[in-house]
Amino acid sequence: MLRSCAARLRTLRVLRRQPGDARLPGSQPGSGKLRSFSFEDVTEKDQALPKPSWSKDLRLLFDKFMKKCEDGSWKRLPSYKTSYTTSTIQDIRAFFSGSIPLKEELMSQARLFTRSFEDGLGFEYVMFYNDDEKRVVCICQGGLYLQGPPGFLHGGALATLIDITLGTNAMVAGGPVMTANLDISFKRPVPLCSVVVINSQLDKVEGRKFFVSCNVRSVDEQTLHTEGTGLFIKLEPGKSLI
Amino acid sequence: MLRSCAARLRTLRVLRRQPGDARLPGSQPGSGKLRSFSFEDVTEKDQALPKPSWSKDLRLLFDKFMKKCEDGSWKRLPSYKTSYTTSTIQDIRAFFSGSIPLKEELMSQARLFTRSFEDGLGFEYVMFYNDDEKRVVCICQGGLYLQGPPGFLHGGALATLIDITLGTNAMVAGGPVMTANLDISFKRPVPLCSVVVINSQLDKVEGRKFFVSCNVRSVDEQTLHTEGTGLFIKLEPGKSLI
Repeated sequence: MLRSCAARLRTLRVLRRQPGDARLPGSQPGSGKLRSFSFEDVTEKDQALPKPSWSKDLRLLFDKFMKKCEDGSWKRLPSYKTSYTTSTIQDIRAFFSGSIPLKEELMSQARLFTRSFEDGLGFEYVMFYNDDEKRVVCICQGGLYLQGPPGFLHGGALATLIDITLGTNAMVAGGPVMTANLDISFKRPVPLCSVVVINSQLDKVEGRKFFVSCNVRSVDEQTLHTEGTGLFIKLEPGKSLI
Repeated sequence: MLRSCAARLRTLRVLRRQPGDARLPGSQPGSGKLRSFSFEDVTEKDQALPKPSWSKDLRLLFDKFMKKCEDGSWKRLPSYKTSYTTSTIQDIRAFFSGSIPLKEELMSQARLFTRSFEDGLGFEYVMFYNDDEKRVVCICQGGLYLQGPPGFLHGGALATLIDITLGTNAMVAGGPVMTANLDISFKRPVPLCSVVVINSQLDKVEGRKFFVSCNVRSVDEQTLHTEGTGLFIKLEPGKSLI
């Protein structure tokens, strides 16, 4: 499915941003100035930072990767719930030639699927990106509302985490993309509330096609839970989606 | 990922049930009697029935398939949020040789991923099964909390719906199964809040391997959104999952 959305465009902006260049959601990339906002614009909380609902394992992994960020080789990617503002929606409509099928009053109520749960009950995750190695690592913890078989993470929830990790890897390398294919092999189930690490890498680029692969392992790396590959197509700005 | 869980075991029970044989969740299949329940056992509401949050398209499709059920060729599959009761958890532990990794006090708070949202905000779906044709049809509507790109359903949410449809098809044919592989090709994005139809069929059985495929189309069948295949492995009762 499509991986080009406001949240991802914003991630791209963050990657291009200079230290100290704080902006509100919807601000124009590269402008160096804050855009004027309508009344409903608000600063959003970055969800990819430690919360009380994070387990010890998730905090330790977070600290480990933040250490890796200190020399600039890795970057933490921020993440938001993304309640779309009027100005953001206008940006998006312009980017996609007005092809968004949802009315604006509903758009403002929509939530990014992976951030639509209350803290700790759904997807808790942070991604880190290494530009030289073209790798994205997602450290994640699936909450009690993501259950499939009793006591285990739902396969669809894991597929979702794989989709966003592979899609982010393609996106930070090539700009806005859409998922064309996902191929996922489930090896061993993931216990609910446990932490797993998704290691992804960009394998190949052919024109607008980005080939990405990943594996999902336990924190101690001893258990290979899942392997996956994805094909992503770079979007052409201004071209309708439907 | 695994498709064997209390909800699916319950679906199997319903398929084997005679008309008028109403039971509480956790009752023993084939016993013909209600099991004795502890105080926290409750009757659960079947989620695969019309609600105020359903769109007109979903209601019309539901009515169309309920008509097909009248001659017995198709069966509607009930679906529950599944707050596990003590007795149900004991059943599950016995089935999986005690391999459930979550403590009982947390198990009772866990929710089936696809039924964990408030009405209308997440996954709304009903499945129908045709035993002669070995087909399962899932009619579904993705709510405002399942957004991926602005105005469209998240790819992971669609992968989830495909997983449960293919898994249910394998499960009603062969009993409890686990997903070994999902291969999904995304053709055209699904507008948020629209209704789509997932048509799945059992293609082949080789020993414990069940091969299932599906396509996802718009209500008018004019738009092919997605195609997918799945490989599911029949579980052996009593064999540990991890």
